[in-house]
Amino acid sequence: MEAGLLFSGGKDSALAAIMLARDYGTELNTCVFDPDREVPQVHAAATLLGLPFRKRVLGRDLLDEAVDLLLACGYPNDAIDTVHRAAVEMLAGDYAVVADGTRRDDRVPGLDRSEIQRLEMTTGCSYVRPLLGYGKPEVERLAERFFLVVYGETGSIGNGDYEQEIRSAIRARGIDPAPFFPSHHLQSLVVGRRKT
Amino acid sequence: MEAGLLFSGGKDSALAAIMLARDYGTELNTCVFDPDREVPQVHAAATLLGLPFRKRVLGRDLLDEAVDLLLACGYPNDAIDTVHRAAVEMLAGDYAVVADGTRRDDRVPGLDRSEIQRLEMTTGCSYVRPLLGYGKPEVERLAERFFLVVYGETGSIGNGDYEQEIRSAIRARGIDPAPFFPSHHLQSLVVGRRKT
Repeated sequence: MEAGLLFSGGKDSALAAIMLARDYGTELNTCVFDPDREVPQVHAAATLLGLPFRKRVLGRDLLDEAVDLLLACGYPNDAIDTVHRAAVEMLAGDYAVVADGTRRDDRVPGLDRSEIQRLEMTTGCSYVRPLLGYGKPEVERLAERFFLVVYGETGSIGNGDYEQEIRSAIRARGIDPAPFFPSHHLQSLVVGRRKT
Repeated sequence: MEAGLLFSGGKDSALAAIMLARDYGTELNTCVFDPDREVPQVHAAATLLGLPFRKRVLGRDLLDEAVDLLLACGYPNDAIDTVHRAAVEMLAGDYAVVADGTRRDDRVPGLDRSEIQRLEMTTGCSYVRPLLGYGKPEVERLAERFFLVVYGETGSIGNGDYEQEIRSAIRARGIDPAPFFPSHHLQSLVVGRRKT
């Protein structure tokens, strides 16, 4: 496959998948920390898109690193960025084009200009973000055209975001994860495809 | 029409047009200062894309303002940004979605975050940049798939960039425009469509 997209099953990465697949042979990649974690609803979302799917294992060391970072910072941004960077770098080993579903208004996760330059220079791959030029209202408008989407807080829906495993790992250290994450942040999961 | 794209006939805005037209009813808009300026090669490029075309007149006052700004700055960036902002605002009066062909590595023209926010809040339109998530190598790779492109310095090819009229206006003031612009900056013009 020409392009590998980081895919959570949510509306943003699903829309990015549709856009990317118009120009590139595209494979969807969902990253987990625990090799035993299954992501059937994400796989189902990939199937709805008609695109091949791979589960990728980032490993428990990265999870520990992310949790350490989050607890040290007191908020999740740097931890999520670290995980996202590792995921992008993993894909850069396998594809000529590495892509994700970040959009214009996303603050996290994101690679800055120098990280992108380093990634592209050292790996020879291209880093592509099909939604970067689109604000939230347009992403929602287009996603609405293509998909049936359900929304819920992390843990209540089976999408493939990193937050769920990070929360569990914090809990396993005897710490309540809730205060470290913004409340009422809704995740999305694509559960159907509209005729277009 | 749902979306209006700023179109120069060059490879970037032509690729942006193809991408945008997959999701939006799209009209191509080329801005000139002088109402008498004809842009047949830009119109021909729009016809190759199979999309409707409109010439828009920004007017001589804006041209004078741009030339004053350029001469005061000693370089064209702020002048080009000013013209581009006026062009985007003109389109915002006519379309729900206003788009351009700026890509990730473009420094000029560009609206910054607060200008975009102000534009979208005051007009209710969405500002979309289909190529913003793509670096130069991917834009060239995709443009190469879709188009036959010719390259040349400003004035030597008939594309619809603002620079040509700004240079003429500087010359009309008895000043040599050459030192104000980067040398060896190639413009592009789409002159054919490849079968895809």
